[in-house]
Amino acid sequence: MSARRVIDRCLQLAQFTEEPGHITRTYLSPPMHSVHDCLTQWMHDAGCEVAIDAAGNLRGLYPAAVPNAPRVVIGSHLDSVPHGGAFDGILGVALGVALVESLGGRRLAAEIEVIGFSEEEGVRYGTCFIGSRAVVGTIDDGLLQRIRPAILEFGLDPAAIPAAAWQHDVAAYLEFHIEQGPVLESLELSLGVVEAIAGQTRAVVEFQGKANHAGTTPMLLRRDAVATAAEWILFVEQMGRNTAGLVATVGALTVEPSVSNVIAGRVTATLDVRHSADAVRRESVSRAFTAAFDIAARRGLQCATRMIQDNAAAPMNAELTALVESSVRATGQSVYRMISGAGHDAMIIAQRHPAAMLFLRSPGGISHHADESVREHDVAAALAVGQKILEHWS
Amino acid sequence: MSARRVIDRCLQLAQFTEEPGHITRTYLSPPMHSVHDCLTQWMHDAGCEVAIDAAGNLRGLYPAAVPNAPRVVIGSHLDSVPHGGAFDGILGVALGVALVESLGGRRLAAEIEVIGFSEEEGVRYGTCFIGSRAVVGTIDDGLLQRIRPAILEFGLDPAAIPAAAWQHDVAAYLEFHIEQGPVLESLELSLGVVEAIAGQTRAVVEFQGKANHAGTTPMLLRRDAVATAAEWILFVEQMGRNTAGLVATVGALTVEPSVSNVIAGRVTATLDVRHSADAVRRESVSRAFTAAFDIAARRGLQCATRMIQDNAAAPMNAELTALVESSVRATGQSVYRMISGAGHDAMIIAQRHPAAMLFLRSPGGISHHADESVREHDVAAALAVGQKILEHWS
Repeated sequence: MSARRVIDRCLQLAQFTEEPGHITRTYLSPPMHSVHDCLTQWMHDAGCEVAIDAAGNLRGLYPAAVPNAPRVVIGSHLDSVPHGGAFDGILGVALGVALVESLGGRRLAAEIEVIGFSEEEGVRYGTCFIGSRAVVGTIDDGLLQRIRPAILEFGLDPAAIPAAAWQHDVAAYLEFHIEQGPVLESLELSLGVVEAIAGQTRAVVEFQGKANHAGTTPMLLRRDAVATAAEWILFVEQMGRNTAGLVATVGALTVEPSVSNVIAGRVTATLDVRHSADAVRRESVSRAFTAAFDIAARRGLQCATRMIQDNAAAPMNAELTALVESSVRATGQSVYRMISGAGHDAMIIAQRHPAAMLFLRSPGGISHHADESVREHDVAAALAVGQKILEHWS
Repeated sequence: MSARRVIDRCLQLAQFTEEPGHITRTYLSPPMHSVHDCLTQWMHDAGCEVAIDAAGNLRGLYPAAVPNAPRVVIGSHLDSVPHGGAFDGILGVALGVALVESLGGRRLAAEIEVIGFSEEEGVRYGTCFIGSRAVVGTIDDGLLQRIRPAILEFGLDPAAIPAAAWQHDVAAYLEFHIEQGPVLESLELSLGVVEAIAGQTRAVVEFQGKANHAGTTPMLLRRDAVATAAEWILFVEQMGRNTAGLVATVGALTVEPSVSNVIAGRVTATLDVRHSADAVRRESVSRAFTAAFDIAARRGLQCATRMIQDNAAAPMNAELTALVESSVRATGQSVYRMISGAGHDAMIIAQRHPAAMLFLRSPGGISHHADESVREHDVAAALAVGQKILEHWS
């Protein structure tokens, strides 16, 4: 199985989309049937028994050489963001299929499950990781009620959701994924071993000043929400720059009234803070909030902060990560340990089972975009590492 | 004629609105008929001959004691912004009527025209000062074609627009207007003598960076359009604070994609700069543009600037302003000369005729809002000054 063929398969699957001309494939949308059909054929040809579980995950099981063997799972997600790329998620599934194919029918001391999760991006229902939540058994009743119509419409049985959870001895979950960032490229590395998935805080900060006439209000009598927000945005950026491993982002702004000749009365800004150490992240969020209150108070404005989301960091399994690392080294590649700033299915699986991740370089750091790509050389390197990892159960 | 009655008349006229519960009265909208009816009655009772010109201006002429006398015009505008206040513009017309009433039929060496301009705010057609442009004869064909349907619908004759222009010896145009800003209140003054209407530059500055994942893009590899715009916004604010008499405002921002977990790829910001000295304003705009390019370049972003509007300052007539000033002093009030940061009909009239303006304190600096108000004490002071000015032609 060549790296080129893995890439071609991803490009072939990218043609199944809700929007012609773009790659848009949300949870259990109609084109997901075609994705399942293709992958089912490939999995079957590789020697897997294939099923679709009640959450819409596509699961191909390659038997072990012995009974009651532990299970090694290789996978990632099949859905995309709107106007996404051809490799985010699905590359990890195509690599899983390719790794089983590369066994050429040889059985191991573990059974192998290749899984294509039905949902990771959170586009259709505003909730991420529906697919991986199903296999660890953490889909609650509220979520189930919301996704029920989509499950029925796709031809699946919502009542079978509990049966989708793994009852097996899952010895390892391995996820290959594009980095979706510029770090590996900047270091001229093909692969990165993920130590942990960063914790993430999402919050909203609101500055309430006083809308006023831009021509008649002297500078020193203003309570300008735009200028106040600007001062805080620079604080957040500086905090990010000065704190090792931290990323801190103000990505969205709402300005009211947002008229050229009116001093803004209110600005609402989002804050996204991520770090591998929860304590560093929480302390940084606290500093950002304090700065917002201080800057607002000094300028005579009101400030309010609101937490939207607060997810702890998810460390990968140390032993399994050591196995990934030694496998990278054994294939002659440089080992680079890194933190994932983005969330991945592996963080959900890690709640219950040993999980590890390997990143592939993202050319230009581009993801969630039609220009998203992957280098053939890097896919070949990942395949080699995957084969080396599987030798552990040979 | 008491100040209280002037205020009551404004409140009465405020009931004529396009939107019940708000004061919204755009150019030649249906409620303008009712405004005209009320004012026509009051002007007529004061001894004026009343007409509506082809642009929709309401004009009451109070004859002079002698033939071929010069004309003194007192007025302001009758239209409002959407959800505006009860005094912006219309107070100047009500004061004009009250000043004629206060003559008790006595004729002067000048004829007096009280004018209610049909349009100043630019809401209905995006063009300001339609009423005052008509009386100075500067409505061009393009504008006429655009406003023609409104003129016809209101029952007026577009062909008569040229005849709306003054053919008379206009010795003085006097405009009483609320300050619409906080300066007089902060100085505890009732009145301000306007020396000039500030020149105004409106521009747009665009920062083009690179949208990227907020979790996977390290701080030092970002080209963040929000943080770049923030640095520039603080430069603009600081420039405004450090330059005497300057106001500089970034009032509107458009962020793309404006998503909490995506570093912004593009920010478009408006710039509004005003000063009484055109050279200072132009140099300030130039500094703001240079700073935008420099900040963007240092951060690896592209920058583009676009001029939207560039209006020269309009100095008021020196002799007439001296007459206003001496009249303020003669009534026992403190004289305070100031610049109007907002545009007014007086700047259009000043292109052809001697014009002067007197500001009345705006409580809370509030205007273009339902809470817009004026103090009875200040209206009484303005009435006394107006009577003193008219004595010049007694």
